[in-house]
Amino acid sequence: MNRWLPLVAKIPEDMTTVEQAEKIVLAQLTDYGTEAVPFEQALGQVLAEDLLADRDLPPFNRVTMDGIAISFKAIEEGINTFHIKATQAAGDEPVGIEDNDLCIEIMTGAALHPSLDTVIRYEDLEIRNSLAALTIHTIKKGQNIHFKGKDKQAGNVVATASQKVTPAIISLAASVGKSELLVRKPPRVVVISSGDELVDVNDTPTTYQIRRSNNYTIKAALTNHGLHAEILHIPDNPEITREQIATCLQNYDVILLSGGISMGKFDYIPKALEELQVNKLFHKVAQRPGKPFWFGRHDNGALVFAFPGNPVATFMCLHRYFLLWLDATLGLPSKAPVYAVLDRYFDFQPQLQYFLQVKLNFTNQGQLMATPIEGNGSGDFANLADTDAFMELPMETNDFKRGDVYKVWTF
Amino acid sequence: MNRWLPLVAKIPEDMTTVEQAEKIVLAQLTDYGTEAVPFEQALGQVLAEDLLADRDLPPFNRVTMDGIAISFKAIEEGINTFHIKATQAAGDEPVGIEDNDLCIEIMTGAALHPSLDTVIRYEDLEIRNSLAALTIHTIKKGQNIHFKGKDKQAGNVVATASQKVTPAIISLAASVGKSELLVRKPPRVVVISSGDELVDVNDTPTTYQIRRSNNYTIKAALTNHGLHAEILHIPDNPEITREQIATCLQNYDVILLSGGISMGKFDYIPKALEELQVNKLFHKVAQRPGKPFWFGRHDNGALVFAFPGNPVATFMCLHRYFLLWLDATLGLPSKAPVYAVLDRYFDFQPQLQYFLQVKLNFTNQGQLMATPIEGNGSGDFANLADTDAFMELPMETNDFKRGDVYKVWTF
Repeated sequence: MNRWLPLVAKIPEDMTTVEQAEKIVLAQLTDYGTEAVPFEQALGQVLAEDLLADRDLPPFNRVTMDGIAISFKAIEEGINTFHIKATQAAGDEPVGIEDNDLCIEIMTGAALHPSLDTVIRYEDLEIRNSLAALTIHTIKKGQNIHFKGKDKQAGNVVATASQKVTPAIISLAASVGKSELLVRKPPRVVVISSGDELVDVNDTPTTYQIRRSNNYTIKAALTNHGLHAEILHIPDNPEITREQIATCLQNYDVILLSGGISMGKFDYIPKALEELQVNKLFHKVAQRPGKPFWFGRHDNGALVFAFPGNPVATFMCLHRYFLLWLDATLGLPSKAPVYAVLDRYFDFQPQLQYFLQVKLNFTNQGQLMATPIEGNGSGDFANLADTDAFMELPMETNDFKRGDVYKVWTF
Repeated sequence: MNRWLPLVAKIPEDMTTVEQAEKIVLAQLTDYGTEAVPFEQALGQVLAEDLLADRDLPPFNRVTMDGIAISFKAIEEGINTFHIKATQAAGDEPVGIEDNDLCIEIMTGAALHPSLDTVIRYEDLEIRNSLAALTIHTIKKGQNIHFKGKDKQAGNVVATASQKVTPAIISLAASVGKSELLVRKPPRVVVISSGDELVDVNDTPTTYQIRRSNNYTIKAALTNHGLHAEILHIPDNPEITREQIATCLQNYDVILLSGGISMGKFDYIPKALEELQVNKLFHKVAQRPGKPFWFGRHDNGALVFAFPGNPVATFMCLHRYFLLWLDATLGLPSKAPVYAVLDRYFDFQPQLQYFLQVKLNFTNQGQLMATPIEGNGSGDFANLADTDAFMELPMETNDFKRGDVYKVWTF
């Protein structure tokens, strides 16, 4: 491709804007079905069913303080000392009273008998010889009781499909007796690296080799996002490349490639993808880092996100495109964007949408501030360990002032 | 304990403030040692060693674009067409030139020979019959090269001990060949629930029972925090309670109790803790929810966080105290607090520090806003699934105005 690109071009014709690329990626949503998993293993997955209360929550008038239970009529009648008729623990069958000067010594979590409607805690009592005397004067009818059905009524939805399973949802599942949860099946993902210059982490590279790291980084980021991924390295050999990619297109829903998609003579991957009928949906995005990003779809529905080889570009594209797609394909409601205030001047001249590495912090006024942490170009991963997010700087502007507000993509 | 508490008390004498409680908890830091784990498994753990660059990063003058490599002297001499002497892929031994009108066709990731100092990308070339002609006029010496050692030099620290292992650190570990990482050993944690009124998630509760959920919630929250915990349920029996807690004090570094620590007649846990020489460091914190929170330490160093039985109180105490302690004991630098703006008026009269459940969102000006989502008292967990954080409202104030800024604890 020997094409002359004018230096002052707005967006070169062969490039896609970030906005267009996002749109094309988000048009490729697939339902991978659902599966039932033990509820504890559902943590981080996406709920595929509503959770219903199997009975009222609480299921009975529940005592919330240790003390005595009385009928409020006693208070209206001026009674302030009570005979303890019985003691009732949580889980016990409720015990009632026949006279208003009787009370039940009762424990937190116990179910209140219909003859009782008010609980007085130990701290407000003197108890001697089975007699409980009030030491306070202000008693409210119904106090220290969590009434039946107040939180939810039997059949009410307590959590809805498409919610991410959080510890709070685990709690609700346990409460309503759902020991198995139906969750959205995640796509089967393989992360492929390529190139004979990349050796394994356990190997000692020759002077002109480096160790593979992108596949591990991607896998770790996906783990943090609740997604399992396999890892595969393909050597620089056209037959093996073709064969392995063909197998992956059959066995996985998504192939994440890092590297091997540039114009280099030894990049066998673009040729293999073409031969295997993976249709290009875009190639090259008007962004830095990550300009050579390639995205395509096989006729069988498998998607190929081919990220550039440089680590920071891959990391950015993973967060900006793949994770956005993943959440959408799993049916999660789209997240509200996060905005931060640039805390010092920054300029970027090329006609590309720049993703600036920033460190985030909150002022004591609740304002999210972003400090640019510039690396030595997009290959500098050491820098990324000190940052929290990419700030997406609009392409139309070249000068970004202290105090300007832009969207950030946290990682 | 029949104590009369005046209703207008600032803080009742037997209570600890949130600030004091935090201080007491953070005074109990323990070093649980270190362990070497395969680097991928270190994700989410705390690094216990500095990571050093095993060689310069990049380890050679690295080509960042596919194209040709030349000597910049050629440009100074007015040469704009080059004979392609050889092709060099990434990982190949570098090939040099003897004359300035020669060039090497070279691929991204390749190591540059010392006779070459400038790379021109394919997009700026016309290549015909082994001749590469420039199609642009502006060439900068050193362009499209990531110079040896620019990111880090051999022996430089690329990540420091006490950093949490993120995907970025996984990447650095792979790059410098650290297939095993030394991480801080986390404490061994057991989560204990108690009470015969609590049945297993798989069981059908009687009318007066409910299902256990707190232990699963705690375990899930800890999983999200990278910490494994065991679960144990103790029946309402004083001998079994004593025996099981004794065993846990020997086998675990931390016991997280939920429930069973109130003043109820059938709460055998406070007695067992006392008999087993777990020294109370505080009991009752001037907060809502979570007032009955108990914290103690066994002579052998084991810590006991005894949270109240109600789910929201337990969840709050877990985040406000235990996770704070965990990060500190593992040597993580303390996180800067997160502040948010209350987006509507809220009042709370009791002389307690109130932890308000809020939903967070960012304005498009980067301002973090908190919307109160009030439940039906602290036992309402259904509510918690819709919120993101607890907002810590100061005890000294009773009226919290729209626009006021307070600390939030996200979960």
